[in-house]
Amino acid sequence: MDLAAMVREQAQAAKAASRRLAVLSRPVKDAALRAMAQALEDEAATVLAANAEDLREAEAKGTKRSFLDRLMLNEERLASMADGLRQTAALPDPIGEGLSETVRPNGLNIRRVRVPIGVIGIIYEARPNVTADAIGLCLKSGNAVLLRGGSEAIRSNRAVSNLLSAAAYRAGVPEGAFQFIDSTDRQAVEAMMQLTGLLDVIIPRGGSGLIQRVLQESAVPVIETGAGVCHTYVDDDADFVMAARIAVNAKTSRPAVCNAMETLLVHQDAAPFFLPRLAAEMAEKGVELRGCDAARAIVPSMRRATEEDWAAEYDDLILAVRVVDSLDAAIEHINRYNTGHSETIVTNRLESARRFQREVDAAAVYVNASTRFTDGFEFGFGAEIGISTQKLHARGPMGLNELTSSKYLIMGQGQIRK
Amino acid sequence: MDLAAMVREQAQAAKAASRRLAVLSRPVKDAALRAMAQALEDEAATVLAANAEDLREAEAKGTKRSFLDRLMLNEERLASMADGLRQTAALPDPIGEGLSETVRPNGLNIRRVRVPIGVIGIIYEARPNVTADAIGLCLKSGNAVLLRGGSEAIRSNRAVSNLLSAAAYRAGVPEGAFQFIDSTDRQAVEAMMQLTGLLDVIIPRGGSGLIQRVLQESAVPVIETGAGVCHTYVDDDADFVMAARIAVNAKTSRPAVCNAMETLLVHQDAAPFFLPRLAAEMAEKGVELRGCDAARAIVPSMRRATEEDWAAEYDDLILAVRVVDSLDAAIEHINRYNTGHSETIVTNRLESARRFQREVDAAAVYVNASTRFTDGFEFGFGAEIGISTQKLHARGPMGLNELTSSKYLIMGQGQIRK
Repeated sequence: MDLAAMVREQAQAAKAASRRLAVLSRPVKDAALRAMAQALEDEAATVLAANAEDLREAEAKGTKRSFLDRLMLNEERLASMADGLRQTAALPDPIGEGLSETVRPNGLNIRRVRVPIGVIGIIYEARPNVTADAIGLCLKSGNAVLLRGGSEAIRSNRAVSNLLSAAAYRAGVPEGAFQFIDSTDRQAVEAMMQLTGLLDVIIPRGGSGLIQRVLQESAVPVIETGAGVCHTYVDDDADFVMAARIAVNAKTSRPAVCNAMETLLVHQDAAPFFLPRLAAEMAEKGVELRGCDAARAIVPSMRRATEEDWAAEYDDLILAVRVVDSLDAAIEHINRYNTGHSETIVTNRLESARRFQREVDAAAVYVNASTRFTDGFEFGFGAEIGISTQKLHARGPMGLNELTSSKYLIMGQGQIRK
Repeated sequence: MDLAAMVREQAQAAKAASRRLAVLSRPVKDAALRAMAQALEDEAATVLAANAEDLREAEAKGTKRSFLDRLMLNEERLASMADGLRQTAALPDPIGEGLSETVRPNGLNIRRVRVPIGVIGIIYEARPNVTADAIGLCLKSGNAVLLRGGSEAIRSNRAVSNLLSAAAYRAGVPEGAFQFIDSTDRQAVEAMMQLTGLLDVIIPRGGSGLIQRVLQESAVPVIETGAGVCHTYVDDDADFVMAARIAVNAKTSRPAVCNAMETLLVHQDAAPFFLPRLAAEMAEKGVELRGCDAARAIVPSMRRATEEDWAAEYDDLILAVRVVDSLDAAIEHINRYNTGHSETIVTNRLESARRFQREVDAAAVYVNASTRFTDGFEFGFGAEIGISTQKLHARGPMGLNELTSSKYLIMGQGQIRK
């Protein structure tokens, strides 16, 4: 059988399973999640052996260090995957929740209730923990899942997926609920993107190349995730000590993640006081600064920033710095260059805070806090499948609720329409 | 300038306007909607003259009667368009509504509030009233709109759009908020579908050919609307008088709309009693029946149904009839052939009603009522931009809330992430 036909067959099996998953009771789902966590711990050796082979091959190919780190599993990372599954079991079941209820003048009772989406496709890159996270979150939200992981992690992903499937099916999850595409051929991705009527959504997780390609080519609806050109704006009426602390945290606490700051904007009246102090603190952390002319007039050691710097997602210890002449200019800069992820203002002025939150177009708009807080755990969702940077369906961190849809249930007593 | 560049420029103008629209106050929006309604009435003659030309050209081309009827405007239809705009003005403003609020252990206050989507693209076919409806609903929900209507209605759409834009801009709506693509060239649609980063969503309204093409080809996210292969299932424990009344209403009250019934399923124990009565009533209404063998054994005058009939959206006085041996078989048939729109069961048995509502996969699942009720007005939304048959973002009738997204507003006091 060719690859596209195989992928279609897997999606059909997932769709068939999704009907039963949608009405699976909470105790069965939670028991399965706990059994899956246990299986990961009990059979850690199998997964680690598969992962060692993936690592060996990647090293032989000369893969770079940071990528190997993402690919690598150890006892501790497996324990954290198992822990994630147990935490998901402990979360409330979103399915069946009543979202609204009205009685119409003709007596029809119209309820809107939460239901699963159906079949979710996930296309991801290096990290094998996504396999366990995605399976766990989809199960809890009553969805079947079709997984396509990165080719470098195929042995690890296969081992995790086999292990979790076996444990889940033993615990009463309908067979076919979790489908892992066991192929490194890129055509599997093409095939997935054409499965309208079988897949309800595709969530790509990985670099912007992957995400843009899926957005462009998929006939199945896509939820865009991840890219983060995040800004910190220091208002003229800011607490500069707080502003420096927030900026350093936003840039350096984990520079490679999507909620890290990429560009700092500073009001021109604040710049002469704030920038020298900030430059010193950033230098201490090893951050390279690239500034506009006004910023370089204050801190001459900065490299000159180009147009590309304003749009760059460095994911590294580099920071673009721009002096702006007003709050309006800051908002305009952000709305022009941002990716709709996370933005923050540091200010003591109520009106600046209000206008920044109203007018900046992003999933998460902060006042006096680091952009690094944008994720499902920090927002209290208990889990996360990704961070949506689009406006349809879900915006910001996506937890269990964002993996659901709704359905209208209408109860009548013989009503007909005139 | 070529067409694609013109369309892109219009989308850019819409996006620029959308920033100001997003923070436009309710009084300005409502006053503009009322002024637009007034303008439609005051300048009815201009619109009717343009429509008369469209009609003349369509007639000369030999366009069929039902299409001409959709295209035609008169004083009464204009009054109803104006009325729709005034009703939209009277609806609550969805923008700014608080959707959730939590305080995290670290003191961060996280609110989720309703915001506009941004720029909405609408691709529609014959009916010029969509121009006014779409502009009104997008304005009230704070969205800019890029409209592409059917070529047969271009003069009518242009007249309505010019009139409404002028009235709205005079009333304080930011210029550029409503963009009408003044071209009958199909390449305008191609161009729209590539406007990622400018258009946030495309909503196609029209026949399934249009919708499927947009779904398949658009790089911009699409909300699927419209197709309705709706079923009525008559359980063995049904009130047959009620069942016949509901079935006749669902099939004949307006056969060409998407919430009309296309297939009737009857439990085998009910069929001998129910089908002869139903066949007589349907015959009186001029409905052609196409049945399975078991149905034809009871009502031999039915034509034999083929596999195509089960999937057909007749939009006409034709009904497919199938006898099923159980509730399970009915649910299985529906989940196989339906389009996720509206389904109903007629039954007195609580367990049948419960299982039907849980297990049937559709936007609206009824008990003892006609499927014809699925629309925004009947659901109490006061307006409707279409009926979503997909599961992402919106499912079922889409009112003002479905034209919105959300945004997280986070208030801190200097919090940084460890």
